[in-house]
Amino acid sequence: MIATVEWKNGVVRLVDQSKLPESVEFLDCRDYRTVAEAIRTLKVRGAPAIGVTAALGVALGAQAVSATEYALFAQAVLKICDELCATRPTAVNLFWAIERMKQKLESLRTEPISTIKQVLILESQAILEEDIALCKTMGRHGADLIRDGETVLTHCNAGSLATAGYGTALGVIRAACEQGKKINVIADETRPVLQGSRLTAWELMQDRIPVTLITDNMAGSLMRQGKIHLCIVGADRIAANGDVANKIGTYSVAVLAKAHNIPFYVAAPYSTIDLRTKSGDDIPIEQRNPLEVTTIHGSHPVAPKDVVVYNPAFDVTPAELISGIITERGVFKPGELASRFQSQ
Amino acid sequence: MIATVEWKNGVVRLVDQSKLPESVEFLDCRDYRTVAEAIRTLKVRGAPAIGVTAALGVALGAQAVSATEYALFAQAVLKICDELCATRPTAVNLFWAIERMKQKLESLRTEPISTIKQVLILESQAILEEDIALCKTMGRHGADLIRDGETVLTHCNAGSLATAGYGTALGVIRAACEQGKKINVIADETRPVLQGSRLTAWELMQDRIPVTLITDNMAGSLMRQGKIHLCIVGADRIAANGDVANKIGTYSVAVLAKAHNIPFYVAAPYSTIDLRTKSGDDIPIEQRNPLEVTTIHGSHPVAPKDVVVYNPAFDVTPAELISGIITERGVFKPGELASRFQSQ
Repeated sequence: MIATVEWKNGVVRLVDQSKLPESVEFLDCRDYRTVAEAIRTLKVRGAPAIGVTAALGVALGAQAVSATEYALFAQAVLKICDELCATRPTAVNLFWAIERMKQKLESLRTEPISTIKQVLILESQAILEEDIALCKTMGRHGADLIRDGETVLTHCNAGSLATAGYGTALGVIRAACEQGKKINVIADETRPVLQGSRLTAWELMQDRIPVTLITDNMAGSLMRQGKIHLCIVGADRIAANGDVANKIGTYSVAVLAKAHNIPFYVAAPYSTIDLRTKSGDDIPIEQRNPLEVTTIHGSHPVAPKDVVVYNPAFDVTPAELISGIITERGVFKPGELASRFQSQ
Repeated sequence: MIATVEWKNGVVRLVDQSKLPESVEFLDCRDYRTVAEAIRTLKVRGAPAIGVTAALGVALGAQAVSATEYALFAQAVLKICDELCATRPTAVNLFWAIERMKQKLESLRTEPISTIKQVLILESQAILEEDIALCKTMGRHGADLIRDGETVLTHCNAGSLATAGYGTALGVIRAACEQGKKINVIADETRPVLQGSRLTAWELMQDRIPVTLITDNMAGSLMRQGKIHLCIVGADRIAANGDVANKIGTYSVAVLAKAHNIPFYVAAPYSTIDLRTKSGDDIPIEQRNPLEVTTIHGSHPVAPKDVVVYNPAFDVTPAELISGIITERGVFKPGELASRFQSQ
């Protein structure tokens, strides 16, 4: 399995996901602005992966700060943090990871700058490694929800490419497969950016997990035919009441699942749970460029040039449609999250 | 407004809808096999338009039959009918229109061949003109269902391009606009073939009817926000019990509409109602080429090359999800159709 993002010889190297599955290309970011641009343009995406990448970006940016005094050094690093924070508004993992880097910076105020620079690299590495470990633990908790021979629908890509590795929703599926269960996956292509067809299908095929690609509007028909046994998706932010912001279309899948009595699960690490956001209504939803809808890959037109477009990147699925939230601490009802994670 | 299909100087001329909206190109079919191929490859599509085009194809084919004796002439024309029938399996208008041409042929058995050839042209023209007239009557019946200032969601293209002109679902919207109502339309892009973005958005923009394009997976989120007041779609076949086969994704829209207490209407002429098909379970659903899902326009890849794809062109919406069926005879509950149309 290729590394979604890594620290390599003083650069942040990431797989350029906008090029998949046609070609596997790596982007070596030599400064934090390239990291920020990669997040903004979806070269790296997926809430946990964005968090990890931003942390690596902070560490990378810090290396280039020339200040020799803590106050000036910290000021420069905090400016880098602000720029990375401004790349995307919805996934809370971004803010969580940058906040953790800020706290580490603050805790090192009496150390020499050269030490701080080294420790920031180590801290970002720790975030990356914890993410992989969390996904594997989450996978084990969630795997028991899938029975041998079942077919799981997933939306967007909540796989190894959306995390530092292994994945959230796809991590649960991987873990079930590792238990020896035969699992079939139905992947929604996930318009407009096609993370399902470009990334999820590709990733599962690499792992030889059986996957069937559909367009987003086919899920309902398959459910009616009894061909989907459960749904598992990732999350970009989970509010205190258990409402979940995730890729646009997730809400429709949840409504359809409810109408067909199909369990609907969300898989996400603690860094996605934002207890300061009370409900889904308070989650900012990113509106993206109409060109994502009117063209394929920005160049191939599929709609009239001047058509009005509505292009929210996410929607909110209310807690009552969610059968359970799979975390590294176990599987919880959406309403239980606040009490389980409030000591965070 | 351009003519979707017409008989012009001895050829069947149609707008090549696979080229829209990038360019408006006409295809002059000089033999019935070119007509059949145009139907098969979606150069012309939409249940009523397919019916009209097939009727014109029968007339065109008949002109080239050299037999001078009725039995041999009829045999050749029936073979043409069979080939046109085999182009697509779901839309019943195709079979209805060809059956009508066959009956006309049969009724002319004592006439000279030259007369029969002329009358077959006239019959296909009559089918075309009736289709436009039916759509306008249907539009007037349906227009009362839309109130001033409302926003209507539609799926696929049930517009003038899906008929000989004016449209079914879009005909209802046109009629409401002609009544002076301010109507907004939300157009599902309708993957995989993108009839919503390529045709519906284009057609409405030509008519200066306000339209906002969304990807199919955004409809649920808009409904939850209260931004959609009703849904109107077309149909490819309506069974005796009121179940409706229509473009894939229609069923999901209907389930979502029900979950949000939004009325869901189907607009279709009598030729779409197939009383010989008892229920939706009996409607054959066309499976199309995986390339429609894995590429855009057959050339631009958006998924791994060898991925398994499920690509049904249609789904079935059960009668209980349908608020009413708008026909040229009025608006009926799905369960009333059989009694209203059984004298057909």
